[in-house]
Amino acid sequence: MTFTALELISEHACFGGVQRFYKHSSSEIGLPMRFGLYLPPQALAGQKVPLLTYLAGLTCTEETFAIKAGAQRLAAQWGLAILTPDTSPRGAGIVGESNHWEFGVGAGFYLDATEAPWAGHWCMESYLIKELLPDVAAQFSLDDQRLGLFGHSMGGHGALTLALRHPGVFRSVSAFAPICAPTQCPWGHNAFTGYLGQDESTWAAHDASVLMGRQGSAPYPQGILIDQGLADQFLATQLHPHLFESACAQVGQPLTLRRHAGYDHGYYFVQTFLADHLQHHATSLA
Amino acid sequence: MTFTALELISEHACFGGVQRFYKHSSSEIGLPMRFGLYLPPQALAGQKVPLLTYLAGLTCTEETFAIKAGAQRLAAQWGLAILTPDTSPRGAGIVGESNHWEFGVGAGFYLDATEAPWAGHWCMESYLIKELLPDVAAQFSLDDQRLGLFGHSMGGHGALTLALRHPGVFRSVSAFAPICAPTQCPWGHNAFTGYLGQDESTWAAHDASVLMGRQGSAPYPQGILIDQGLADQFLATQLHPHLFESACAQVGQPLTLRRHAGYDHGYYFVQTFLADHLQHHATSLA
Repeated sequence: MTFTALELISEHACFGGVQRFYKHSSSEIGLPMRFGLYLPPQALAGQKVPLLTYLAGLTCTEETFAIKAGAQRLAAQWGLAILTPDTSPRGAGIVGESNHWEFGVGAGFYLDATEAPWAGHWCMESYLIKELLPDVAAQFSLDDQRLGLFGHSMGGHGALTLALRHPGVFRSVSAFAPICAPTQCPWGHNAFTGYLGQDESTWAAHDASVLMGRQGSAPYPQGILIDQGLADQFLATQLHPHLFESACAQVGQPLTLRRHAGYDHGYYFVQTFLADHLQHHATSLA
Repeated sequence: MTFTALELISEHACFGGVQRFYKHSSSEIGLPMRFGLYLPPQALAGQKVPLLTYLAGLTCTEETFAIKAGAQRLAAQWGLAILTPDTSPRGAGIVGESNHWEFGVGAGFYLDATEAPWAGHWCMESYLIKELLPDVAAQFSLDDQRLGLFGHSMGGHGALTLALRHPGVFRSVSAFAPICAPTQCPWGHNAFTGYLGQDESTWAAHDASVLMGRQGSAPYPQGILIDQGLADQFLATQLHPHLFESACAQVGQPLTLRRHAGYDHGYYFVQTFLADHLQHHATSLA
C-alpha cells in the first residue's frame, strides 16, 4: 500500500530523532488528513523499529500529544516510532460539523459512521486500520509486526475498542483516562446516536467494557495498563473505568488500573505517567 | 510585599507537585497579569526551594513553557519551583497593540517602555524585578536568595539582559536561542524604536552583548549556558549569538554556547536540551 499525495508539512529535530507532520489524501475518508510521526534516532539510522500509535481525545489534533506529552525523550531512548493521527475528518462541509466540541469535527470516536450525513467521510476505524497504519509502516520502513496502541479519553476508548475489534494487529495496549463504557455515558450516547443511529444494539460493538466481557479468554495476556486521575472532572459521569475493570476480571484479562489521587484529565496528568506507558509498550514490542 | 487580588485560575497535579496558573492585579503594570507556577513536591512538603524564572518568546503566554517543555519532571526531581510570567501586558487598550506579533501584546521585550503610548503599562522589567519575583517568593515561601533565570528567544534576551542589569539578584542564567544583540537585528530595532524611541543611545542598556562587553569582570563566574539550533530560521537575521560570545570572551565570562546541527527555533528544540539547563540551574542553586 502506498500513500496518495503525501506531503511533509513540517519537521523538527527532537532528541536526536525527528518529529514530522504530514498531510495526505485519504481514500477511506475521502478527504485530506493530517498526522504526526516521531521517528527515533534508531529509525533514522535504518533500524526497523516498532510503531506505537497514540489516539487523542475530544477537540485534539495530530499535534496535541506531540507537543504536550514529552514522549520523544523516551521514544528516542527506547527506539519507538510514534504515530499521532488526527481525531476526525476535517473539511467535509457537513452542516454544523464544528458546532459541538464532543461530536463532529475533533470527535470522530474512532469508528465508521453508518448514519447520514456522517457515513462516507466519518470512517476513522477503517482509515486507521486499513490505510494509515499499514501505509505509515510501509512508507517509513517500520515494523508492522510490532504495533502498539494507546490513547487518552476518547482516544483511550479508541485504543481499547480497536485493540479488541482487531485481534492480532496490536501487541500492546494502554490508555489514559479512557471512556470505558460509551454506551453508558453522555459523550458516548450522543456520539453513537449520531454516528450509529438510534438502534442501541449496534452500539455494543464499540464499547470497550462490553467487548471485553464477550471475550472467551484474555486477549492481551501480557496485560493492559490504564491510568486514571481521581480529580478528573469527567470520571464520575463519562469514563466508568470500574466497568472495564469488572469486564477484565470476568474474562481473566490482566489489567493494571492505577487510580491517582489529585490528578485531573489533562496533559499534566498524561505527562506524569507517560514513562510507564512507553515502558509497557517498549517491553511488549521489544 | 504582597499580592493584590491574587486569584488561582487553575491547578493541575503534575509529577507529585502542582502546576498552577494565577491572575493578580499588578501595580507596576497597572493591569491584571497572569503567571504560571510549578511547585515541586519538596515545596508542597514545606521545604524552601529555589525559584527559577523562565521568560518566554514572542507570541507566547504564561502557559507555553508549562505545557510544551516537559520541565516539571526534572523540577520535581531536583526540587525547583518554576515561574512562567506572561510576555507582555494585555488589555491596555492601546490602539493597534495586537496588530503585530513582534511588537505590543505578546512582545514586551522585558524592559520598561519610555515612549508613548507604551510607557506606563509596558513595564515588564520593573514588574518582574520589583513586583512579581519578590511577591511570588514571599507568597509561596520560596528561597529569594536562590533565584535563577532563563528564557527562549525574546525571553533569552530578557534573561541575559535582566541578569546583567540586576547584578546579585540571580545566581544562575541560561538561554535557548536568545536574541543576543537586539540593537543589531530587525526585531530589536523595531521594538526598541517603539518602546525606547529613536535615540539609539538608550538602546545599548538593553542589549545583552553590549552589556556583557561593558563588564569589568565576569559577572557569572560559574558560567552561562546557551543552546542554539543551526537550522533555526531566525539565527542569521535575528539572534547573533556570536556577538554575545565575543563579548563574553572579551571580559572573561565563561560561556558554554552549544550549536546543534538540524535543530530549529521551537519547543521540540527546547525540550531536547532542557535537562541540561535545569541541571545547570539546580547545580548553581543547590
